[in-house]
Amino acid sequence: MTAMKTKRVGKQSAVLPSKPVILAGGSVAGLDEAKGPLGKYFDYLLEEDLFGEDSWEKCERKMFAEAVEIAINKAGKTKQDIDVLMGGDLLNQIISASFAARALGIPFLGQYGACSTMSQSMVVAAMLIDGGFSKYAACAASSHFATAERQYRLPVEMGTQKPVQAQHTVTGAGCAIMAAEGAGPKVTAITIGKVEDWGITDSNNMGAAMAPAAAETIRAHLTDLQLQPDHYDLIVTGDLGKLGRKLCLELLDEMNINVQGRFYDCGCEVLDSESDKHSGASGCGCSAIVFNGYLLPKLQRGEIKRMLFLATGALLSQTSVMQQDSVPSIAHAVAIEGQVN
Amino acid sequence: MTAMKTKRVGKQSAVLPSKPVILAGGSVAGLDEAKGPLGKYFDYLLEEDLFGEDSWEKCERKMFAEAVEIAINKAGKTKQDIDVLMGGDLLNQIISASFAARALGIPFLGQYGACSTMSQSMVVAAMLIDGGFSKYAACAASSHFATAERQYRLPVEMGTQKPVQAQHTVTGAGCAIMAAEGAGPKVTAITIGKVEDWGITDSNNMGAAMAPAAAETIRAHLTDLQLQPDHYDLIVTGDLGKLGRKLCLELLDEMNINVQGRFYDCGCEVLDSESDKHSGASGCGCSAIVFNGYLLPKLQRGEIKRMLFLATGALLSQTSVMQQDSVPSIAHAVAIEGQVN
Repeated sequence: MTAMKTKRVGKQSAVLPSKPVILAGGSVAGLDEAKGPLGKYFDYLLEEDLFGEDSWEKCERKMFAEAVEIAINKAGKTKQDIDVLMGGDLLNQIISASFAARALGIPFLGQYGACSTMSQSMVVAAMLIDGGFSKYAACAASSHFATAERQYRLPVEMGTQKPVQAQHTVTGAGCAIMAAEGAGPKVTAITIGKVEDWGITDSNNMGAAMAPAAAETIRAHLTDLQLQPDHYDLIVTGDLGKLGRKLCLELLDEMNINVQGRFYDCGCEVLDSESDKHSGASGCGCSAIVFNGYLLPKLQRGEIKRMLFLATGALLSQTSVMQQDSVPSIAHAVAIEGQVN
Repeated sequence: MTAMKTKRVGKQSAVLPSKPVILAGGSVAGLDEAKGPLGKYFDYLLEEDLFGEDSWEKCERKMFAEAVEIAINKAGKTKQDIDVLMGGDLLNQIISASFAARALGIPFLGQYGACSTMSQSMVVAAMLIDGGFSKYAACAASSHFATAERQYRLPVEMGTQKPVQAQHTVTGAGCAIMAAEGAGPKVTAITIGKVEDWGITDSNNMGAAMAPAAAETIRAHLTDLQLQPDHYDLIVTGDLGKLGRKLCLELLDEMNINVQGRFYDCGCEVLDSESDKHSGASGCGCSAIVFNGYLLPKLQRGEIKRMLFLATGALLSQTSVMQQDSVPSIAHAVAIEGQVN
């Protein structure tokens, strides 16, 4: 057996000595997201929520494939250069990702981490690249308000009111191209999340369900790598929403982890706060478009020097909810250094 | 950037110079599987199809967790030793795997490759171990006849007849423990599949849908690694079933890949051929229990010297079927050397 140097650090983390590079990101956003405060940062804005297709599901997979193609183009690569596509979505059997992978023809490893899929895919891709198994990897995730409503909730046409703690699923898809070489922000470490479940049974309250997973992964990351929170300019969660963000900050406070002034939740930022979207945005696409459209360029310009990105996922299903299970959640973290020019 | 030696070979494959070891396997099987020709090889046999739970879904997640626990025990390890659990199942939002991960408390990366999940999890785990990111990884997959019927098809109580090309979902769960060091069969190479879709729209005919994916991954593996099929004692597919197996052999024949006498499909072997199970067995659990219960011990005893294991998955959903999409499929391959004592 070849002698091997371990890159594991602590219980849940690993360092990446070769520092895989994020070459480019692609983002496709829906109508509400286009009207939101980050609208101008996305690469492609839908003009209607079907993207020229005859079902929302076909729209979602087209957004997924489009985000991947945009990212590949921006990286100056072709589909044939990409060794592996890692990604997923919220739909049963992740059909958005699988059908997009069919259209793209790139070797595919389907990931399921609910709304944590963007960072989960980056976690796995970073290890495959650092390990020398892949030269160029595409990491992607998508969601669509209408596909999520019809699958998880009630027909939109019914006009059912939602409780204030509910979030609004983002229509959007994002993709990051990671590589062994090139210029760009670098992935320095990763932390794999554990499933947390504090007994929330209200499937409308995913922010509360996910807050402990986010806090525990932040704690695990800092402990494993022996870092203080101020090591990072920004600690970014995926889609906790207003209530989940508040609860996560309270939990971090109890853990004596002070993230004051450096905590950012994509779900609180992507939709117009004047529109009535209750607790904010959610969905795999939420962190995917905010990361690839808004945060990655800041990392590329060196405006963010060190960032911890952790998308957060609620691992419920309609069946688990109907069987009165609580909502298990997870968060995976990726540590990224801004580009030094 | 640290200089890195690439382990990629050809378009879709990678070699694993450190040869991760499969320390042990665990398998839990249902009633039909217990009565089948491989029944005596499984670690735990259910006495009824609820495993003491009050729903089939809760039974399935309990089987998943039990298979992981059995494998960890047989490896002489504890749950705390395992860095990462990789796995999935067929249920919407892979709740069997996610809820089992909650019960087990092991850092979790949910994989979705439909019935290819067992080999997909081993593909990723082998790279994480060879790369030095993980010391001990658990790879697991499950399925349950009754959860699959209720989710994908019609209520069992209706007694709907199935067409002869249909397969029977295995009730079972399997887990393999992979490690950086120790005694056991070794993983030498992996091949990541591409999504194949030859236009099959009959969702009962998953064998035909998956046959091209299996054949293409076998071809990619042999081409990438410049091997002839007789390099392997056994080339094992997951759950093509009788019809899919026949079609895969025809496709391989057209590709001039002669696997005569060394081709084995788990789906054709696990159920009693006298029982009326039409085209054979399917489901994530099919290859998971046959690999971990029956084939792994043969590798451990050195009775199989070199084996290519590729579980096969049909990436359809109820929604994609209702929207008249065809059935995309995928297969991922793991090359394993039998233990030399």
